[in-house]
Amino acid sequence: MNKCDLEKQYNAYKASGTILDMSRGKPATEQLDNLSPLLTEIKRNSECYSENGMDCRNYGGLDGIPEAKSIFANILGVSSENVVVCGNSSLNIMYDTISNGYAFGLNGCEPWSRQGMVKFLCPVPGYDRHFAITSLFGFESVNIPVLKDGPDMELVRKYAENDPSVKGIWCVPKYSNPTGVTFSDKVVKEFAALKPAAKDFIVMWDNAYAVHDFNDTPDKLLSVLKEAQERGTQDLFYIYTSTSKITWSGAGISCVAMSLANKERYLKIMGIKTIGYDKLAMLRHARMLNEHLPEIMRGHGDIIRAKFELCYKYFAKLEREIEGFDFSRPNGGYFINVNVPAGKAKRVVSLAAQAGLKITPAGATFPDGIDPEDRNIRIAPTYPSLRELEDALRLFSICVLLA
Amino acid sequence: MNKCDLEKQYNAYKASGTILDMSRGKPATEQLDNLSPLLTEIKRNSECYSENGMDCRNYGGLDGIPEAKSIFANILGVSSENVVVCGNSSLNIMYDTISNGYAFGLNGCEPWSRQGMVKFLCPVPGYDRHFAITSLFGFESVNIPVLKDGPDMELVRKYAENDPSVKGIWCVPKYSNPTGVTFSDKVVKEFAALKPAAKDFIVMWDNAYAVHDFNDTPDKLLSVLKEAQERGTQDLFYIYTSTSKITWSGAGISCVAMSLANKERYLKIMGIKTIGYDKLAMLRHARMLNEHLPEIMRGHGDIIRAKFELCYKYFAKLEREIEGFDFSRPNGGYFINVNVPAGKAKRVVSLAAQAGLKITPAGATFPDGIDPEDRNIRIAPTYPSLRELEDALRLFSICVLLA
Repeated sequence: MNKCDLEKQYNAYKASGTILDMSRGKPATEQLDNLSPLLTEIKRNSECYSENGMDCRNYGGLDGIPEAKSIFANILGVSSENVVVCGNSSLNIMYDTISNGYAFGLNGCEPWSRQGMVKFLCPVPGYDRHFAITSLFGFESVNIPVLKDGPDMELVRKYAENDPSVKGIWCVPKYSNPTGVTFSDKVVKEFAALKPAAKDFIVMWDNAYAVHDFNDTPDKLLSVLKEAQERGTQDLFYIYTSTSKITWSGAGISCVAMSLANKERYLKIMGIKTIGYDKLAMLRHARMLNEHLPEIMRGHGDIIRAKFELCYKYFAKLEREIEGFDFSRPNGGYFINVNVPAGKAKRVVSLAAQAGLKITPAGATFPDGIDPEDRNIRIAPTYPSLRELEDALRLFSICVLLA
Repeated sequence: MNKCDLEKQYNAYKASGTILDMSRGKPATEQLDNLSPLLTEIKRNSECYSENGMDCRNYGGLDGIPEAKSIFANILGVSSENVVVCGNSSLNIMYDTISNGYAFGLNGCEPWSRQGMVKFLCPVPGYDRHFAITSLFGFESVNIPVLKDGPDMELVRKYAENDPSVKGIWCVPKYSNPTGVTFSDKVVKEFAALKPAAKDFIVMWDNAYAVHDFNDTPDKLLSVLKEAQERGTQDLFYIYTSTSKITWSGAGISCVAMSLANKERYLKIMGIKTIGYDKLAMLRHARMLNEHLPEIMRGHGDIIRAKFELCYKYFAKLEREIEGFDFSRPNGGYFINVNVPAGKAKRVVSLAAQAGLKITPAGATFPDGIDPEDRNIRIAPTYPSLRELEDALRLFSICVLLA
């Protein structure tokens, strides 16, 4: 297609006034509709009691109910005793962990607020909401490139093991947001073998997509807590997950798993912050997921795979046509990682926005929104319907070609 | 009864091995059972949308759904636009407010973490979980006596208006925990007229018992936000409430109401912490409470009044028999405030504990657990059944007489 035709088509989209949104990793309504039994999982007062007899309507049970701990323990490959079940947002508990370190210090160290400049390692491209938390607290972000099997561990060790002002690292170890990379066994073991210079270094291990496979060749992730326990480094790890992309994104449950020593310290502060999280939500989820987790994830997978495959079709065409365009083909998760030719990402996103297609802002996958090469674009294809997605992909292709 | 008879009875209780708990303000199972329609308030996917069309199962809507804002606005006597609806714990959002001031500063001031010693005014006797938050952050507590119509405002002004290191005050303005006192119109207006020395002074207005009347002569509380808006002091006030003692204590919803300027600043930080709180919980609550709030509170009131009246019977007898014993007769709330003769509170609680009756620890109603006169005991009679309560009151009376 020549430039003139492209511009004609682009202007037609612009004129049509259609609004499409591929900006965030939201499940589609169709996926949420599959969860309707969860609405009425608990119907009667007599069903409000957990397996250890707790009344889930009343106060009590700071670290959650046993059946919810057990669900998350299975998802994460850890023991139930390591799990604290929380509210609808795992982001919120990640924030709390950072906030605890900032105000009270971790592992008996001085609070980060009194240690001068604090640095945090940020694998890039990565999750904007992670980076926003450590930026809010004023930490300096250190970019760590994500390779095919996880973050560049040589660089991670260089910073973590030599610079005591480096206090932690953000990770999405399976189907990383946005690269789709899953950490290899070697990388997980290297994390477990880390010997940080700072006594209060922590690994923020956000295993958000632990069971979010969508094809027949799912990635496998080692349990970092088990690997760490073998090496005595278990206090480094704070492991998060949630049901946000299993059941309802806005109304699920979440958890943090950690060593027993960390858990004891964590609960001391958490017990001052709250009397406990919503145990009825835990009970509803635990009962439903205990029976139906694999089937629910297969249902989501089928819906999502179709959308990803549609994206691959369009992106493969762009890859053939444009030097410097490439994209990821993950086995699960919520994102496709697209690289356009250097210096063009902002232009593509802005062209798309002007024609009514909302994409995650270029640069958002880097700390403070700065992609040094202006190449990376995160595509979140799950929310639109297949038909809307095809429209969006046509427009996106035009924008890439125009840019 | 002579001492020998008392001891005999006390030992009989001890030997019986009965365990009774009057330590926390928990609703009785009977109250929770009245809420069963809330379990199935939303049954179908099509019912999951808020009145402005938001899908409450998905992400979005940082400050809550309109119908939930409106419920809380009515309860608090503020406008919906001032309200942010949150999760199941108002304590958690109080903690977050303090934590924000500590880490980021309020009203453009330096963070409290960098201001040296910070002081917080603590009306006593008061709520132990409030004091625990400011103590955790290392603030110095300043005791302010609670008079018949609220905190000693002369003293509040003396500290707040002269000492810039005084950064705030905890308040339970209606049916205070534990005194049962409701702030008079005069006191509310004096709060609204406060001219603190510190630009980052805040009033933590925990209106937990806003609609929790249980007899025909309920207390009335002025809307402090409206009074403050008239005087231009609205940025001082953070107003909290929850449904913890309306619906389910462990699985309700909560809110914070504030000036629009404060709300904008608050949401900026909250938007980094979370994508939003559980909107399905909000929707269930809003739909149910919109129709049935007065009837629900009448149901709770009938159950609670009977328990309070039983307490009054026993305490009136003690008041006649013992010099220095007195107690409160509130029109609502969850607590009866008991004063035993000076120096005896710890002894009474310990005697009770040894015989199987758990009472809130003596001193818990004071910062850091220190009651300078060792007189105050908080009685929380709502959780036990009437029969268990009568048992507990008999034993309590014996302990007071023995002490």
